[in-house]
Amino acid sequence: MSDTRLPRRNGLPTPAPTLLVLDAEPLPRLGRLTGRARVVHTDAAGLAGRLPSADVVLVWDFTSPAVREAWPGEGPRPRWVHTASAGVDHVMCPELAASGTVVTNARGIFEQPVAEYVAALVLAIAKDLPRTLDLQRERTWRHRETRRLAGTRACVVGSGPVGRAIARKLKALDVTTALVGRVPRTGIHGPADLDRLMARADWVIAAAPLTGQTYGMFDARRFGVMLPSAHFVNVGRGALVVEDALIEALSRRWIAGAALDVFAAEPLPPDSPLWGVPGLLVSPHLAGDTVGRLDELGAQFVELFERWSVGRSLVNVVDKKRGYVPGH
Amino acid sequence: MSDTRLPRRNGLPTPAPTLLVLDAEPLPRLGRLTGRARVVHTDAAGLAGRLPSADVVLVWDFTSPAVREAWPGEGPRPRWVHTASAGVDHVMCPELAASGTVVTNARGIFEQPVAEYVAALVLAIAKDLPRTLDLQRERTWRHRETRRLAGTRACVVGSGPVGRAIARKLKALDVTTALVGRVPRTGIHGPADLDRLMARADWVIAAAPLTGQTYGMFDARRFGVMLPSAHFVNVGRGALVVEDALIEALSRRWIAGAALDVFAAEPLPPDSPLWGVPGLLVSPHLAGDTVGRLDELGAQFVELFERWSVGRSLVNVVDKKRGYVPGH
Repeated sequence: MSDTRLPRRNGLPTPAPTLLVLDAEPLPRLGRLTGRARVVHTDAAGLAGRLPSADVVLVWDFTSPAVREAWPGEGPRPRWVHTASAGVDHVMCPELAASGTVVTNARGIFEQPVAEYVAALVLAIAKDLPRTLDLQRERTWRHRETRRLAGTRACVVGSGPVGRAIARKLKALDVTTALVGRVPRTGIHGPADLDRLMARADWVIAAAPLTGQTYGMFDARRFGVMLPSAHFVNVGRGALVVEDALIEALSRRWIAGAALDVFAAEPLPPDSPLWGVPGLLVSPHLAGDTVGRLDELGAQFVELFERWSVGRSLVNVVDKKRGYVPGH
Repeated sequence: MSDTRLPRRNGLPTPAPTLLVLDAEPLPRLGRLTGRARVVHTDAAGLAGRLPSADVVLVWDFTSPAVREAWPGEGPRPRWVHTASAGVDHVMCPELAASGTVVTNARGIFEQPVAEYVAALVLAIAKDLPRTLDLQRERTWRHRETRRLAGTRACVVGSGPVGRAIARKLKALDVTTALVGRVPRTGIHGPADLDRLMARADWVIAAAPLTGQTYGMFDARRFGVMLPSAHFVNVGRGALVVEDALIEALSRRWIAGAALDVFAAEPLPPDSPLWGVPGLLVSPHLAGDTVGRLDELGAQFVELFERWSVGRSLVNVVDKKRGYVPGH
């Protein structure tokens, strides 16, 4: 943790550290840092030239891979990178992982919203809500039987804060829920159990970080083990999924349906086949983004900055080898 | 309860009672009653002529008001009427209420499905799911902030089994929930609190039985006290709501939106203005109707019939003056 401490004189950091903010609209509200940091705003194009002179980088625009792409292999570099997101895949690169730079994330902001979004999806699917909206447009009264959610089974892949929040939410709705993580521990299954759990799940929920081990883990073979009546939901990262394999699994009815909030390429281009796959619900990476989150993300960073600038150790520190904040 | 007992000889009811079944497709499966009841199927047109000779009426087609309309004012009449529904408004009339005939309902079958359906609606609205489906059809990626459900407030009107199940489900989703019933008791508000609770609720959920007191209770004045950001949901009976007043409240933006699963006239005719009101979600009275419910409804009636035919007292007995099964 010594890397997170600033050189100090008379108990105060000096000079005021340079905070480089990679942003786009909307801007973070950093008024509370006035006089305590030299704040430099940059876009992706200007990042590389400014990185060497920055003490801290705030990755406010977490849709940009600019930090990963511009990270200096040698020479002076920032001591701390904070990303206003749960995932850190867009900032991590081997050079950053090997460096002494500390990486923190926005743990604590997105968990509940994402869990609620997953609950909204599985309930909407169980209750056939998309079809109801279609029939309303046609002014057609067509009674159907829908499904009970209680008593169904879910397999949540990813045992970090988001995955655990999803599991809690589904359990609150009386869904029998198994959680799968990188290593087995109390209440959490290891990867060896994944196929078996997927094979009997009504809902497979992807909420894992994107790492070397999870890249493309939901492929044709894994969709093949799922129940024909089951649904797949991805609120983690797009590249967890082999998208062509999902399209094929849906069109061959290997599985009953899916919902994707994240994609290998975002924004999803208008000509992507994913928009039009029957049984696939597409949403624009909004699962975690509830009203008020920008204020929360800004306040969280300011609080971390205040800890850092007085030499207290940071929280939400990412294990850079694993690619996420280790769980409790 | 003596009215629920059958004349008996040698400990067995005799002769086999006549069970009149008001039905349409699909038929109830009453195979277990073979030899123990003389089962007569009828449609609405044939009901009046057959009522006087029936011992028991099973109202399987609970969309029909035929029992109420054909109920004999005098002379022989059935001793027991069971309706395969939660609400009893379609069978109740003053003559039936005044008679010795016992009325039972399908309490226990619909509560969880309706509660899940309400959860699906409020989550879909909070997460802007209808708009997401519209944008997907247009192949348009448009990120928005949605709302957290946790911490919002609900007012559930109707403290019977369905209302209580809805309240439990919403509480499980961390919604602050108040329940309003006919009379105040522990944990349940009385009608005197209704306006105050509606005035601060994000979600007003109608789940009351249709009685003389509840008919048209959601009128222009009551929509007027709601928050402009609030939503109204009706899963009780259509006639709880003054539909024209709801249309006006929505078009004048007194409230933000609504979802109706029940209507004054069902099926909702294609030319009803309700189909096309912006912000109004219309579903075809399916909230409680999950896969397997017909088997459950049939088995529930058979079990009640078996109790009745050996002289045991019935359960799910409706308080005919109040119009519902009194709560625990």
